[in-house]
Amino acid sequence: MDKVTISDLSQHEGKEVELRGWVYNTRSIGKIWFIILRDGTGLLQGVVVKGEASTDAFLLEQKLSQEDSVIITGLVKKEPRSVGGFELGIKDIIIINHVTEEYPISHKEHGADFLMTNRHLWLRSKRQNAIMRIRHQTVKAIRDFFDSNGFTLIDSPIFTSNAVEGTTTLFEVDYFERSAYLTQSGQLYQEAGATAFGKTYCFGPTFRAEKSKTRRHLTEFWMVEPEMAFVDIDENMTWAENLVGYIVSKVLENCKNEFDVLERDINILKHIVPPFPRITYDEAFEILKSNGSKFEYGNDFGAPDETILSQHFDKPLMIHRWPADIKAFYMKRDSNNNKLALGVDMIAPEGYGEIIGGGQREDNIETLVKRIRHHDLPLEPFKWYLDLRKYGSVPHSGFGLGLERTVAWLCGTRHIRETIPFPRTMTRLEP
Amino acid sequence: MDKVTISDLSQHEGKEVELRGWVYNTRSIGKIWFIILRDGTGLLQGVVVKGEASTDAFLLEQKLSQEDSVIITGLVKKEPRSVGGFELGIKDIIIINHVTEEYPISHKEHGADFLMTNRHLWLRSKRQNAIMRIRHQTVKAIRDFFDSNGFTLIDSPIFTSNAVEGTTTLFEVDYFERSAYLTQSGQLYQEAGATAFGKTYCFGPTFRAEKSKTRRHLTEFWMVEPEMAFVDIDENMTWAENLVGYIVSKVLENCKNEFDVLERDINILKHIVPPFPRITYDEAFEILKSNGSKFEYGNDFGAPDETILSQHFDKPLMIHRWPADIKAFYMKRDSNNNKLALGVDMIAPEGYGEIIGGGQREDNIETLVKRIRHHDLPLEPFKWYLDLRKYGSVPHSGFGLGLERTVAWLCGTRHIRETIPFPRTMTRLEP
Repeated sequence: MDKVTISDLSQHEGKEVELRGWVYNTRSIGKIWFIILRDGTGLLQGVVVKGEASTDAFLLEQKLSQEDSVIITGLVKKEPRSVGGFELGIKDIIIINHVTEEYPISHKEHGADFLMTNRHLWLRSKRQNAIMRIRHQTVKAIRDFFDSNGFTLIDSPIFTSNAVEGTTTLFEVDYFERSAYLTQSGQLYQEAGATAFGKTYCFGPTFRAEKSKTRRHLTEFWMVEPEMAFVDIDENMTWAENLVGYIVSKVLENCKNEFDVLERDINILKHIVPPFPRITYDEAFEILKSNGSKFEYGNDFGAPDETILSQHFDKPLMIHRWPADIKAFYMKRDSNNNKLALGVDMIAPEGYGEIIGGGQREDNIETLVKRIRHHDLPLEPFKWYLDLRKYGSVPHSGFGLGLERTVAWLCGTRHIRETIPFPRTMTRLEP
Repeated sequence: MDKVTISDLSQHEGKEVELRGWVYNTRSIGKIWFIILRDGTGLLQGVVVKGEASTDAFLLEQKLSQEDSVIITGLVKKEPRSVGGFELGIKDIIIINHVTEEYPISHKEHGADFLMTNRHLWLRSKRQNAIMRIRHQTVKAIRDFFDSNGFTLIDSPIFTSNAVEGTTTLFEVDYFERSAYLTQSGQLYQEAGATAFGKTYCFGPTFRAEKSKTRRHLTEFWMVEPEMAFVDIDENMTWAENLVGYIVSKVLENCKNEFDVLERDINILKHIVPPFPRITYDEAFEILKSNGSKFEYGNDFGAPDETILSQHFDKPLMIHRWPADIKAFYMKRDSNNNKLALGVDMIAPEGYGEIIGGGQREDNIETLVKRIRHHDLPLEPFKWYLDLRKYGSVPHSGFGLGLERTVAWLCGTRHIRETIPFPRTMTRLEP
């Protein structure tokens, strides 16, 4: 008899199969009863009919608990009314492990803190299962996009030796009698990568020790960072919008059931097709002003500002050419206005905030040295970074896309702690 | 005119194209001279002929330095004697950035430490470029293997809260007035994943603070860790050999040029097709004994032992059923011999050492509690881990494959520091 998964049932219609999984729920309507089985690939309704099922199986009705692990055998039947379109006519049920204590997570509502403490079990729920599958498909889409567009994967290191811009948001590590710091961005290493390989990306965890408890912050989150030689700010924006467009098209293609579970309106997502709107920081400022915002020119946009801006567009919005003073030292200046930096942020629609930050990098060594001095930073730690301008410097650009914020937007979930398997925040290190 | 890359030249035969890259080398034979261009996707020979190239371009011969960044235009010609099969009849050369100081890495030999200090530039060399491409294709093959076999990606966390097995090889992090530790393995979290999704994997950086300076050790390295519900030690070994067989087949398919650069004998790799030999620890012990080794029963195999064992097989070797005393507390015991743990290690051929460690996990809660107590470990930090046995426990297994050791074997390179873009060791945190 074939051992199959729920997701593969359509290939076994009319056949007797074996499934292995966990009891999600049971219910009775007299002479027949139903078992909802989950096996990690989906949910399946099994019908237990006296005379068709073994006597032992039929008598299990009162004995089964939620999350009992079981092996069941039965006949695969087409049933359009069932989720997935199939149903199992149960022949036999073997209990592998019987749950004797009540399962902590019932099908009722629970508080967020309780659920986070039971994250190892909460992941089994329909909703969390759907979000993790969308996360997986997002990761796959990102990697496929870069792999099929000539990028080489160059993993940036996690351990870095310097905290030249201050240790406020850096995690410090005891490293063989000296200190190391956990990376906040792999960008500088990707710049080395781009001059060696043309186009590179890294995709790994990054860390920020922010004393922030908002729904948008994690201390540990994943970021993908492409970097491209011979690419300016405009082409950089084209790469950014094409990446996001590709992600959306792939999750729409592969995660229909998951969006159903989340009750996410996918018509909004179907509209996310490049090109995306591009406005300057100055234009964004004008939009805020005409909406009565008290936003002051020269600041970074806060979450409320981003929400106002995103409401004016039904696609992700790219804001470019920022006041140089609020951007990092390595950003190239606009040749038309030296006070502006060639940075770009992408704001997700529906108020989900910034999902991409990037820009064109300064490629002139004298300008970069001046900029480092102006920011009161030491030159020595940047020696290798300056080498990239000394030997074969080229115009180059890149950006970073935050995985969890992107998944939160795609899933329509407000709190990013649901978008990573085991979230880490200021107050949470377990499970 | 089309802007193209060297890897795409075959699609532009007979056309004039623009290429952007860096000067790798130049040489002259009188009235014509040659420029070797690298653009990150490959190397290309350009021919500069008086009368065919612009006068400006022709006169550049004495001016160009290694690693000058340039834009060149020319005619794509078939040339079977050239690497890649094509040559460029140069029309014009525009220098973007001229190198005025001598490039530190010439085409001569350099010491390892000097090269590691200049890792940001060393990555541009032919050999390092080839290794990184093989690494990329290995990563891609691993992810494709799991994605196409029904596994869900469940990233394990990097920050963990406990150091119950001692802090000797753990990196400690200041975490908001308490301590966190960098993960050494995502396994326990994958066990939670497997009971939620059936089959899961994580693939990220892991950390070991080992005071070891051997060629096999990095403080930061990447590991892929699959975990599967309803899978025993035997099926676990089948997954492990199929994964490695798939990786080898994909890099052979996609990295022919790279293996040429490395002068790696791919006939040895072509032979790596599952099934792989499986022997018990006891059988391995007998092999060592009959080879005159002084290895003592009950120990873990050292590098010299692994080398002896690998010499007896031309495929990766799986050694299973280990003395339980030298394996972790969570390993399930062999039902035929309670002194043996159902662990498995995979040893690469040609003396490249262990690339996989894994096994079947203990799924009985009483046995596991007893084991934790026997190891003098506190129960409280394992509460969530024990929950996985309390609610729907199932037989399950998994393993971890070390990326850098695998790439070192595939590439035939003895020191794993060449297999990661920016290696971190006891003494190295830069660049």
